[in-house]
Amino acid sequence: MNFCPQCGSETELSVPEGDNRERDVCYSCDSIHYQNPRIIAGCIPVWEDKVLLCKRAISPRKGYWTLPAGFMELAETTEQAAIRETLEEAGAVVKTESLYALFNLPHIGQVYMIYRSALLKPEFESGIESLDTRLFSEDEIPWDDLAFPTMRLSLEYYFKDRADGSFTFRSTDIVKHRP
Amino acid sequence: MNFCPQCGSETELSVPEGDNRERDVCYSCDSIHYQNPRIIAGCIPVWEDKVLLCKRAISPRKGYWTLPAGFMELAETTEQAAIRETLEEAGAVVKTESLYALFNLPHIGQVYMIYRSALLKPEFESGIESLDTRLFSEDEIPWDDLAFPTMRLSLEYYFKDRADGSFTFRSTDIVKHRP
Repeated sequence: MNFCPQCGSETELSVPEGDNRERDVCYSCDSIHYQNPRIIAGCIPVWEDKVLLCKRAISPRKGYWTLPAGFMELAETTEQAAIRETLEEAGAVVKTESLYALFNLPHIGQVYMIYRSALLKPEFESGIESLDTRLFSEDEIPWDDLAFPTMRLSLEYYFKDRADGSFTFRSTDIVKHRP
Repeated sequence: MNFCPQCGSETELSVPEGDNRERDVCYSCDSIHYQNPRIIAGCIPVWEDKVLLCKRAISPRKGYWTLPAGFMELAETTEQAAIRETLEEAGAVVKTESLYALFNLPHIGQVYMIYRSALLKPEFESGIESLDTRLFSEDEIPWDDLAFPTMRLSLEYYFKDRADGSFTFRSTDIVKHRP
């Protein structure tokens, strides 16, 4: 941040009184501008023994496969965000079952929340952010062409738990240090 | 938002191409400024049969009791945020056990994540955001003087599950419509 979103004056990076971290501070209008992690909500959409994946039409990782997921918006819940993203990216209507996987990615300020969900009918179509959308059985999953570690892990957890006969909530930290 | 945090030009509220929501857009430097929900991470800090609460020294709800919790920062995980807030507000060192309660508050763009946690020793002290910090047994909880519905519900869930002998992850939407 260079300029105050409120008044347009130049901001300074400094530690406000009573705080212990540098913030973007505007000394003209006396405002502090916090930056916080963002939530990415998504689904594991299941139909019979298959999972619905989307091939990304956009950067990053264009051309790689992903579970439908995206940034949570204001004025919605995490479940609503997961359902909306599944509709937008995969043209699929789902009913969420439970929060299944939480991923913390502190190096990029992201928290993923992935819901197990059921397709209401086997109908789907690629949204504008997807090149292709397909149902995959476990042995068809394109493991080498998945877009993100969060998607690989979500699918690994899902198929393992399904084989074991019970689903357990997973919380995973994916910690990378920036160079 | 009135001004672009990047270049300082005036922003406009408009729907970017390929989007379906109004965003703060800067047509000078061609940037889109998204606003997203924020995560509040906190703990239910337990010592023997008691729970640690803090009396708020700051607005909103100054003078009311709360579980230690606060806005998650960049570069930390949800668990680290919950542990940090407990140290900052209650001077207490905890070990988290599991994510216990998730609250969506879409009308204010907040997602609460409350962890069950154990105090490592019965030592605590009020941080600068707390007027008082105390351990409460179930029958001592100041139910009429709790700061937020999320705190009341977290404690209700906790004592119910403790009585039942097993803790179940809870996801709750607290939906209010702004006037």
